[in-house]
Amino acid sequence: MELGIDIGGTNVKFGVVDGLEIIYKCEIPTGAKRQDTEIVADIITECKKILAKYDKIEKIGIGSPGGIDSENGVILGAANINFRNTPICKMITDATGIPARVGNDANCAVLGELYAGYGREYKNLILITLGTGVGGGIIIDGKPYLGTRGDAGEIGHMIINCDGEKCGCGQDGCLEAYASVTALIKQTKKAIEENPDCYMAKHAEKIGKVSGRTSFDSMRAGCPVGAKVVDSYLGYLAIGIKSIYQIFRPDAIVIGGAISNEGEYMTKPIIEKLGNKNVLVATSRLKNDIGIIGAAKC
Amino acid sequence: MELGIDIGGTNVKFGVVDGLEIIYKCEIPTGAKRQDTEIVADIITECKKILAKYDKIEKIGIGSPGGIDSENGVILGAANINFRNTPICKMITDATGIPARVGNDANCAVLGELYAGYGREYKNLILITLGTGVGGGIIIDGKPYLGTRGDAGEIGHMIINCDGEKCGCGQDGCLEAYASVTALIKQTKKAIEENPDCYMAKHAEKIGKVSGRTSFDSMRAGCPVGAKVVDSYLGYLAIGIKSIYQIFRPDAIVIGGAISNEGEYMTKPIIEKLGNKNVLVATSRLKNDIGIIGAAKC
Repeated sequence: MELGIDIGGTNVKFGVVDGLEIIYKCEIPTGAKRQDTEIVADIITECKKILAKYDKIEKIGIGSPGGIDSENGVILGAANINFRNTPICKMITDATGIPARVGNDANCAVLGELYAGYGREYKNLILITLGTGVGGGIIIDGKPYLGTRGDAGEIGHMIINCDGEKCGCGQDGCLEAYASVTALIKQTKKAIEENPDCYMAKHAEKIGKVSGRTSFDSMRAGCPVGAKVVDSYLGYLAIGIKSIYQIFRPDAIVIGGAISNEGEYMTKPIIEKLGNKNVLVATSRLKNDIGIIGAAKC
Repeated sequence: MELGIDIGGTNVKFGVVDGLEIIYKCEIPTGAKRQDTEIVADIITECKKILAKYDKIEKIGIGSPGGIDSENGVILGAANINFRNTPICKMITDATGIPARVGNDANCAVLGELYAGYGREYKNLILITLGTGVGGGIIIDGKPYLGTRGDAGEIGHMIINCDGEKCGCGQDGCLEAYASVTALIKQTKKAIEENPDCYMAKHAEKIGKVSGRTSFDSMRAGCPVGAKVVDSYLGYLAIGIKSIYQIFRPDAIVIGGAISNEGEYMTKPIIEKLGNKNVLVATSRLKNDIGIIGAAKC
């Protein structure tokens, strides 16, 4: 039995993993702007509570954004969380007596998909995670491929439109600038500005925000403006998926991240645009649990 | 000792490979439009001549464009050569008594780079071959990655400009439409049309044709139009290489194909555009021998 900890910018998720199943789940706020010692202290408190309930836990696995030194159990630094050379594994093991490992969250997601998702059936699999950015993971011949320095799979920074949108990374026209949830929200806001009287504009006003769901929900309510945003967004995503297919000719391309809850509303149009039945295109079966399971197995 | 045969649209190259060295080389015209039996008959005649000289040859390896059934030794079909379910291995073995294997030429090139080129030093390596099209090969952890159906590495059909040039494959904006030698020739011809008085225009007229070398040679002769064509061409190639780097974070990205003879005139500007010292970008050391060595080892 393992305790998987998925550290995010907003929440830290905990899951007790028995085999491939999560038998207990909870979460706490990250408080990402605080000192790293305070963040880890809260994580340790929660670990202790869970360990008191589940005495068969033999390992704690942690997934964190940012640069990770897995060998020494240190989070080197993360963009949105106040970690800086934080020896998180030693801190947790010292406090709990349980051995701990830490890995990069994108790499953990790949492990989750490998051990508990489509990776159980498909040997060559590419995972595309859509969120604030676009991440990726590569499974080759049933094993995660991490590259020589452990940082491979930056699928979001594949260039799909070399004369196009500036990406946060400095390059022009990255997939991330078109297919992240951040990009979808931007595309949705632009459509609302241009069509202030459409259903989507009113819907967004009513719920008080624009999210990654706004265009999908509006499309399902029959709004043509919402449908157009979704179609264009999935068009960009399909371009990235086409390139991935050409390079890897894999068995499966799996879409992860919260937006993958849209399920067939995403995959059906993408499969149509791809026009190729030699590859499975699907949303991850693990949904948001992928990070916990992956962390547990890291 | 092996006999490597590299079948191309114009010529068939033969090489006797001892270890990793080619100790004898020759070539014959392919006569690609003839019946496949005639094409293979000429190959067999040449094989017999070579086998008479080198009696230590234990294996014949063949690299061919197109779809290949390696297990059964059959060339299923090729775009520019009249092969159609041609049982080339059986035909050659029946005539010579030497066991034969056939593989796709792009996959053979990867084997060549793996065993005799940069693959000896770099475990994670991507090969980009520039010619009529843009091919590719992937070496992961010291082994060729061919994908589930043996056809991975179609790097040329990665989309770099989704609103851009139509590619022969039907997609819009593939790397091949910008970075193949075919594309370079097109770009060179366009520049000549637009600048009929430039050095490059006169140079092309003098030698009576436009080739992949025209713009590079003109650049070296001080022609600003030639330099602009080269810069733009390498810009597109660099975009493809950036994407490859982001996805694989490999140790090395190696450029093959006849145009790789340009050496540092290609790699220096690309390395500058890439702005990253974590990856070796180089032209293949094997030059045009890569196909022969790869075929020998297939």
